[in-house]
Amino acid sequence: MSQVEISSTRRRRGRASLMAAREAEKTPRLSTIKYALSPVEVVSADQLERIHQASMAILRDVGIDFRDETAIRQWREAGADVRGHRVHLEEDMVMDLIAKAPRSFELRSRDPEQRITVSPETLTFGTMQGAPNVRDVDGVRRASTMEDLRDVNRLTQMLPGFHVAGGFTCEPTDIAVPWRHLHINRSSLVETNLPYFGLTTGQERAEDSIAMARIAYGEDFMKSNAVIIGQISGNSPLVWDATMLEGLRVYAEANQAVLLSPFILGAANTPADVAATVAQLNAEAVAGLAYTQLTAPGAKMIYGQYSVSVSMRSGAPMSGMPEVSLVNVLVGQLARRYGIPWRTTASQSSAKTFDPQSGYESAIAYMSGATAKSNLFLHAGGWDEAGLVCCLAKFVADAEQNLLIAKYAEGISFDHFDEALEAVRRIGPGGHYLGDSFTLKRFKDAFISPEMLDYLSYEQWKAQGSKDMAQRCREKAKMLLSSYEAPLIDAAVREELDAFVAKRQEQISPSLA
Amino acid sequence: MSQVEISSTRRRRGRASLMAAREAEKTPRLSTIKYALSPVEVVSADQLERIHQASMAILRDVGIDFRDETAIRQWREAGADVRGHRVHLEEDMVMDLIAKAPRSFELRSRDPEQRITVSPETLTFGTMQGAPNVRDVDGVRRASTMEDLRDVNRLTQMLPGFHVAGGFTCEPTDIAVPWRHLHINRSSLVETNLPYFGLTTGQERAEDSIAMARIAYGEDFMKSNAVIIGQISGNSPLVWDATMLEGLRVYAEANQAVLLSPFILGAANTPADVAATVAQLNAEAVAGLAYTQLTAPGAKMIYGQYSVSVSMRSGAPMSGMPEVSLVNVLVGQLARRYGIPWRTTASQSSAKTFDPQSGYESAIAYMSGATAKSNLFLHAGGWDEAGLVCCLAKFVADAEQNLLIAKYAEGISFDHFDEALEAVRRIGPGGHYLGDSFTLKRFKDAFISPEMLDYLSYEQWKAQGSKDMAQRCREKAKMLLSSYEAPLIDAAVREELDAFVAKRQEQISPSLA
Repeated sequence: MSQVEISSTRRRRGRASLMAAREAEKTPRLSTIKYALSPVEVVSADQLERIHQASMAILRDVGIDFRDETAIRQWREAGADVRGHRVHLEEDMVMDLIAKAPRSFELRSRDPEQRITVSPETLTFGTMQGAPNVRDVDGVRRASTMEDLRDVNRLTQMLPGFHVAGGFTCEPTDIAVPWRHLHINRSSLVETNLPYFGLTTGQERAEDSIAMARIAYGEDFMKSNAVIIGQISGNSPLVWDATMLEGLRVYAEANQAVLLSPFILGAANTPADVAATVAQLNAEAVAGLAYTQLTAPGAKMIYGQYSVSVSMRSGAPMSGMPEVSLVNVLVGQLARRYGIPWRTTASQSSAKTFDPQSGYESAIAYMSGATAKSNLFLHAGGWDEAGLVCCLAKFVADAEQNLLIAKYAEGISFDHFDEALEAVRRIGPGGHYLGDSFTLKRFKDAFISPEMLDYLSYEQWKAQGSKDMAQRCREKAKMLLSSYEAPLIDAAVREELDAFVAKRQEQISPSLA
Repeated sequence: MSQVEISSTRRRRGRASLMAAREAEKTPRLSTIKYALSPVEVVSADQLERIHQASMAILRDVGIDFRDETAIRQWREAGADVRGHRVHLEEDMVMDLIAKAPRSFELRSRDPEQRITVSPETLTFGTMQGAPNVRDVDGVRRASTMEDLRDVNRLTQMLPGFHVAGGFTCEPTDIAVPWRHLHINRSSLVETNLPYFGLTTGQERAEDSIAMARIAYGEDFMKSNAVIIGQISGNSPLVWDATMLEGLRVYAEANQAVLLSPFILGAANTPADVAATVAQLNAEAVAGLAYTQLTAPGAKMIYGQYSVSVSMRSGAPMSGMPEVSLVNVLVGQLARRYGIPWRTTASQSSAKTFDPQSGYESAIAYMSGATAKSNLFLHAGGWDEAGLVCCLAKFVADAEQNLLIAKYAEGISFDHFDEALEAVRRIGPGGHYLGDSFTLKRFKDAFISPEMLDYLSYEQWKAQGSKDMAQRCREKAKMLLSSYEAPLIDAAVREELDAFVAKRQEQISPSLA
């Protein structure tokens, strides 16, 4: 009952034409994805107001630490109640500051055609960040190197499912820590031509990141265009640290986008309660967003959050959990209230190998984010083992999932509805549609056809080597890497980037202080 | 950045207490799950009306085949425009009939405490149906037998994530086809005490199914209580066959629940257009639902649909596709318009082995159904290889996913919100919550802790044998089956069931006519 029976010659001919038409096409890179879904909501307007007010009460009564002298001075000058590093904020000041932010902004690429709008109405996919290990194209888990990071960028450039590339997808552990940001930025700019994640940990690394972007894009261009996103992680509960605030200022003042992400380990650094977890997270996010507008009015910014719950058995973060999906729904409702685009974590898994768990958890995160109308899916490629591994096979699988999620988010078109209903009249009860003219005309756009997901019969699948999805994706990654060609970059720009890296390596000691 | 650091002694002590508390508890069987989410929607009220009107136009102008003499007679007597087996229906008649259906009904179990409400506000999980093969506890794929079907029922009885058991989860291929329904029904009643899926293919098998349920539950009890669901599959496009309509009448007239499911292979038996696919599907469903009320006014019924898109490469059904997720959203919007609970297909995958594809596709289907507020998740356990395999490892994995999805659907409680906010004031910036009194009191209910998903560190996981999720689930299935105890059943009832099976086997030829 669950397998379509294709028995008639007429149907077979129909399918052959369809297959030929499909083979001729190549999937183009995702452009801006505009949501056509009205999202899941889980609280009423009154309850949402209650959470918002709880966040405001936390900021007013408990306060939040800005462990950074510049920020403290700025808050004091703005009239906030500052005691040591503790800042107590009133709702009016916070909301007035947030109101200065643009609701929508563009991310530019070296390809002038590729302009991505980030807004509460759009969906953007970015690669994973921060893995110290890689699971390579042979399935071997090991400490990642610079060459692995470059491979991730090469894959990003070749796979159509990403809008934002680069950053420290995996750590180049074979390069001295104080030099890594230089090589990471260089690879983002040389191996891809997409907007990318810059490095933000501290004043100097942030400045180097901006300087390198300016080499590639030009200082004038960057004055009015964002090409790079700086991720600024919170230190929950209720702390923003100097290292991150320095990075924040450098990016925001250079008119580049910033992503402010409280780092939530539910029940470990928040209360064991979903709504109160969000009240705290929201207090942290809103304070960071307000500070961004205080230091750089009009700065392009994204309401971020990294949320997992924590296993009480092992203390480990748990991906794909319902509480985290509910956090997404609530954060979505709050961010829309504030009119700020917001970020979720897509495709996160805790699996130690690319197995069914990896699939379940990743897809739950994808759908949870899309149905909550999240505007930036960070980590949407490769994330496994709670972020300790960037899995190249999973990177390929996730890139395809991005295409599927994009199609879901874009909803339903009525452009061909009447013509399609004519087909219903033409075919009638008991007929079939495979050879119908409307099917031939529309199937390519109407129904997506993935490549890494397998739809062969069991016998065909066995005849082709009984390859599970992990193996198919490893093979695809190898094939892509062997046929990679770097995007165009001006030779002078490339030389200037190399010279910048060389100069800074001379200036920076390779050993950590 | 993505691993929680548990370094202080205080935190370790906190977690030890939490672990001890968790070990003491056992997960209870899911009771009625009430949605607290407002669902995803993808069309406006006007667009929804347009689809509804397109369905009505199909039923009026194209008509629908009821290939069954009794149904044709009933439609003619009701005043419909009948030409041969083609019935042309007007909106008023169809909607007046559907209005006779209960919005909500109960499913009863042999456990008097276990009463499940099926309604547009609730979520119900049922096992997969119809696999000719099993992937057994050793991971071997082979034709399924009666003992495999019994094992699936045993697992259903032991796992807390199912509301509805039984039916032809996998085909007992070692039993003659004409006798199978007897043994399947017997196993549903003996190995489980839950409401279950009965057999519906034709008058006699349906009558035998009802007769056996009456032996276990009593005829009087069943006059006012549903204990069994009969699935009635449509033959798309626009055909209801006699075999299914006979089953429908037997179930509906016995006051048992019926599930009417058009069988949608998008672009193969529908137009290559999502909205028009739903217009056709809805015409089929609504005609079937209206007929149910024509033949048994007030009958308990569920708006069903099995939907996949079809690969133009192989003709195979594709699970987890965005178009199918969008069909869910639309069917949800339509079913709520009609006030009828509706069914989706949860956890469907096309994977040939229990691999990442299986996880991705299943979770997409789960989340797509939950966010569209589906009221019955059919096939929510074991479905792989496009329904050609019931995988016992996946059955265990899905049973746990059911618990996670239930928690998501139930949304957020504010019962402990104020107390949790007190904890935020108590802990303050830079603190941690693991040892806090509120965490100790609430963590069990606030954050779920799955068992089949693994959160060990890589090193611990390796030390425990590097088991992927498939292996862990196979081991769990073996463990459960080795400790299974059948639910209580009156010895006389059991004897009467056995006698019924024996008597009917004497009456029915084991060879197909």
